[in-house]
Amino acid sequence: MTFAHRLWKALEEKGHPAMVGLDPRPEHFPEPFASHAKTGSRAAAEATREYHRALLPLLADKVAVVKPQAAFFEALGLYGWEVLWDAVQFAKELKLMVVLDAKRGDIGSTSEAYAQAFLGGGQYGDLPKADALTINPYLGEDACKPFLEVAATEKAGLFILVKTSNPGAGLFQDWGEPPLAAQVADQVRQWGSDRIDASGWSAVGAVVGATRPQELAQWRQRMPQSPLLLPGFGFQGGTAAGLEPAFDAKGRGAIVNSSRSILWAHRRPEFAHLPNWESQVEAALEEMCQALASLQQREKPEAHR
Amino acid sequence: MTFAHRLWKALEEKGHPAMVGLDPRPEHFPEPFASHAKTGSRAAAEATREYHRALLPLLADKVAVVKPQAAFFEALGLYGWEVLWDAVQFAKELKLMVVLDAKRGDIGSTSEAYAQAFLGGGQYGDLPKADALTINPYLGEDACKPFLEVAATEKAGLFILVKTSNPGAGLFQDWGEPPLAAQVADQVRQWGSDRIDASGWSAVGAVVGATRPQELAQWRQRMPQSPLLLPGFGFQGGTAAGLEPAFDAKGRGAIVNSSRSILWAHRRPEFAHLPNWESQVEAALEEMCQALASLQQREKPEAHR
Repeated sequence: MTFAHRLWKALEEKGHPAMVGLDPRPEHFPEPFASHAKTGSRAAAEATREYHRALLPLLADKVAVVKPQAAFFEALGLYGWEVLWDAVQFAKELKLMVVLDAKRGDIGSTSEAYAQAFLGGGQYGDLPKADALTINPYLGEDACKPFLEVAATEKAGLFILVKTSNPGAGLFQDWGEPPLAAQVADQVRQWGSDRIDASGWSAVGAVVGATRPQELAQWRQRMPQSPLLLPGFGFQGGTAAGLEPAFDAKGRGAIVNSSRSILWAHRRPEFAHLPNWESQVEAALEEMCQALASLQQREKPEAHR
Repeated sequence: MTFAHRLWKALEEKGHPAMVGLDPRPEHFPEPFASHAKTGSRAAAEATREYHRALLPLLADKVAVVKPQAAFFEALGLYGWEVLWDAVQFAKELKLMVVLDAKRGDIGSTSEAYAQAFLGGGQYGDLPKADALTINPYLGEDACKPFLEVAATEKAGLFILVKTSNPGAGLFQDWGEPPLAAQVADQVRQWGSDRIDASGWSAVGAVVGATRPQELAQWRQRMPQSPLLLPGFGFQGGTAAGLEPAFDAKGRGAIVNSSRSILWAHRRPEFAHLPNWESQVEAALEEMCQALASLQQREKPEAHR
């Protein structure tokens, strides 16, 4: 089954295109995990493992995809890397799809090592595999090729950074005329052209910030067959309104990420009346899923393409 | 002591600007390590640890700086990350400086997590720290700022990707007019302007491929106070001839990396007569150090700046 087919099928079973980011910051965990994390990296990593063991089943009930952010695991050092792969493996056992947000990119053989690390089960193929990986295109085509090749072998997806969700994204991404990000988008389209499945979707997608809905139609037009990863929903200010251009008449086309609005549900005043962090996460998930469900339930007389 | 001061002092003690990359590919290790690595990720990581325990003292005799490449450690999964930090810690015990080649880059709080992971001893400050980190600028100024801030706190260095050593680097790095890489270089200069020490060198450096000596003078001019990391010497085709523009009259200005010409010394026909892999590594190091020593021994009547 192609990556895109697996992705759309999984999202359709849940009825919305929401994805939850795993950005473990132990000092912000709900209790008792935050207290367990306090004595240093090893304890924090252990608390992170326990937290994810409790959190992931709640997520698996409501969403189809999780996006572990490598940076927060790496900030727990050697202990964190172990906990990252524990979370990936547990997520897969729960039938969650895993988009690993590591934004890697390097020259040829080094890119291949990264691709094997995240998508190929490591150099020896005996480790867990993510379903997709985010990559940074700055080093060019020969640097992206190893990711494309390993992803093809593994039937995995890629999401290549095109236009990110941070306020200063334009400094380099808007450089030149047409802007660099448009040139990257054209390459994404081309690189993904030999991985398009029978339903018309490629396994090579793009990251486009959900904080800039006004640009979405343009990105969809430049990459008509690429799944889009839209980060920044929720705490970063993105909303469901304005995300429609990323989706086709069948409600396919993108996954929408939120991290803090779910992970920090226990700190949200509107959920303070709920009895525990689990019910607060469930309420935040319910809110997010409802907000995004309309994107999949639209029926338009004609597809956008 | 500033990062640049520590770097130049360490290089001057050795008499050349050479650095060795740690790119562990267990199948290419000398024996007995290659055989020890064969049964999977865990054994390969253990062989990597043993290999580095034997290799690093040889390197510490001849060079001042090592550059672990995160990708190859990550390709060994959770085991590899532990071995990476074991190598960093052991290198520091041997008084080697460590430039961690991880090419990270993300949005604000995520970049901060990466910066803490590599330069700050992790989120809890209880883990080993590298002396410098390579970062990818694609996400812009607000994404680079957390790296700049953590590096300043830790008196650490940064090497920001400007123009990489791979053949296809220009696809995006040459985009626009002036080319994107020149715009990135101008930013590197500006970002490093408040970390210039008494000797005139910044702690914010740049990665510029040694495979393009004809461009070096231009990069030096655009970033006159930034240490340059020049990868690609040796197997990638770069030579010492043509690297002079990166250095000033005192022989300061850059570190020159080689990985495979040293790590694969046991496979080089010209060293086949030597009795063991250690003496082959020593011969390859000697060759590299001699080839690069002239870059530090020049005495010119006037500095280039």
